[in-house]
Amino acid sequence: MAKKYTKKHEVSYYECDINQTMTFPSMLGVMIKISEDQSDALGRGSEFVNRFGLTWVITNYSMTVTRLPKVGETILITTQAMEYNKFFCYRNFWIHNEQGKELVKIESVFVLMDFVNRKMSSVNEEIIAPFESKKIKKIKRQEKIEKIESGTMLPYRVRFYDIDSNQHVNNAMYFNWIIDVLGYDFLTKYVPEKVLIRFDKEVEYGNEIESHYEQVAMIDCMKTRHEIRMQDQVYCEANIIWKNK
Amino acid sequence: MAKKYTKKHEVSYYECDINQTMTFPSMLGVMIKISEDQSDALGRGSEFVNRFGLTWVITNYSMTVTRLPKVGETILITTQAMEYNKFFCYRNFWIHNEQGKELVKIESVFVLMDFVNRKMSSVNEEIIAPFESKKIKKIKRQEKIEKIESGTMLPYRVRFYDIDSNQHVNNAMYFNWIIDVLGYDFLTKYVPEKVLIRFDKEVEYGNEIESHYEQVAMIDCMKTRHEIRMQDQVYCEANIIWKNK
Repeated sequence: MAKKYTKKHEVSYYECDINQTMTFPSMLGVMIKISEDQSDALGRGSEFVNRFGLTWVITNYSMTVTRLPKVGETILITTQAMEYNKFFCYRNFWIHNEQGKELVKIESVFVLMDFVNRKMSSVNEEIIAPFESKKIKKIKRQEKIEKIESGTMLPYRVRFYDIDSNQHVNNAMYFNWIIDVLGYDFLTKYVPEKVLIRFDKEVEYGNEIESHYEQVAMIDCMKTRHEIRMQDQVYCEANIIWKNK
Repeated sequence: MAKKYTKKHEVSYYECDINQTMTFPSMLGVMIKISEDQSDALGRGSEFVNRFGLTWVITNYSMTVTRLPKVGETILITTQAMEYNKFFCYRNFWIHNEQGKELVKIESVFVLMDFVNRKMSSVNEEIIAPFESKKIKKIKRQEKIEKIESGTMLPYRVRFYDIDSNQHVNNAMYFNWIIDVLGYDFLTKYVPEKVLIRFDKEVEYGNEIESHYEQVAMIDCMKTRHEIRMQDQVYCEANIIWKNK
């Protein structure tokens, strides 16, 4: 059984939006931090990984939200590197409240990238052995992300603070552009229930990106489809299911 | 002597920019959180203040940076409500490293605002008594902030995530617009040494603001002057002194 790693976190006012609940960038920020802490604790921090000319890149998240963490709440963040095959590592994250109730679950896909040729590398056993993940043959199929059929868009410029200390645009930042286009009325009426997101290409500082979106009314919920595009190329795509607040 | 309040904080990668040091919004976020924690501990949290129809508003910061906190570093954040007069409360913040060396000092001015008529209220003794600040007669003059003489600007739209759980645009967010205009080359060459900022009016969700700025080369440092404007009105002004990295 792969090693679990858990840390407590007190949700601050600046991690929350006007709904008094944690934003996506804040949730992903604390979760990635926990996985970095686990890696450091196992002697497999970024310095170790960099020695092989490699760096971790996240390609997919699948999030299930039972309830978003609230301002002032103490939450427990847990991570576990579940399984891996030749190219992909499957890592889970959970947010629980202090009573042990699951608030959010995230399944993610990590790959190792060669930072010279920017190509995907096969999984290096020396890097991942201490996590005690299960080796599998199968490539786990990710849930399908529906394309936009007829959408609209808003432009955004990648800002200096969108690049983090890891030198590139933090995956969590894509949510700034994805969420913002939906507008105040939508975002105070609906809460997210399920999120699928895939990161296809990396955007860079100074880029002008377009955040395309489309709303689809379902029988008992709302669906939004999203694409971050630049010069007709898709950099990131997402589907979100929302329910009434 | 006014009560001091201190908390430890571990600096996360997502609180830092590409220089591996903490961003202004992150520093201000954790500092304001500490002052809220102190207020809660003294039974003077926002709920108590709101009962009088009042809310705290920050009008000025004067920051002195010896060295910015670094990724992974454990820092100590301290706050102390120093003095107050009829209308203004003067609160200090400090960031120290674990060895007790001062990294950042911030002097700030807080006022109580009536949230119905949006006017400044006189300081309410019942709210501030537990902080044991010193009552003074004098209105402390703030260092002068120089106006822009001939600047340039970039436009920004106030986004959904720029409004925090306190229902308005977080003061720390102004730094996103102020800092971003300076660009990558400037921001990786210079580090801030001294910041003066004044918040004149509140911007709101959906506003299109202009971040005006001007660089002035000094003998042994750089000065930048900033104004956040909308329709020719100034919402925020700042001066920053920078030294070579």
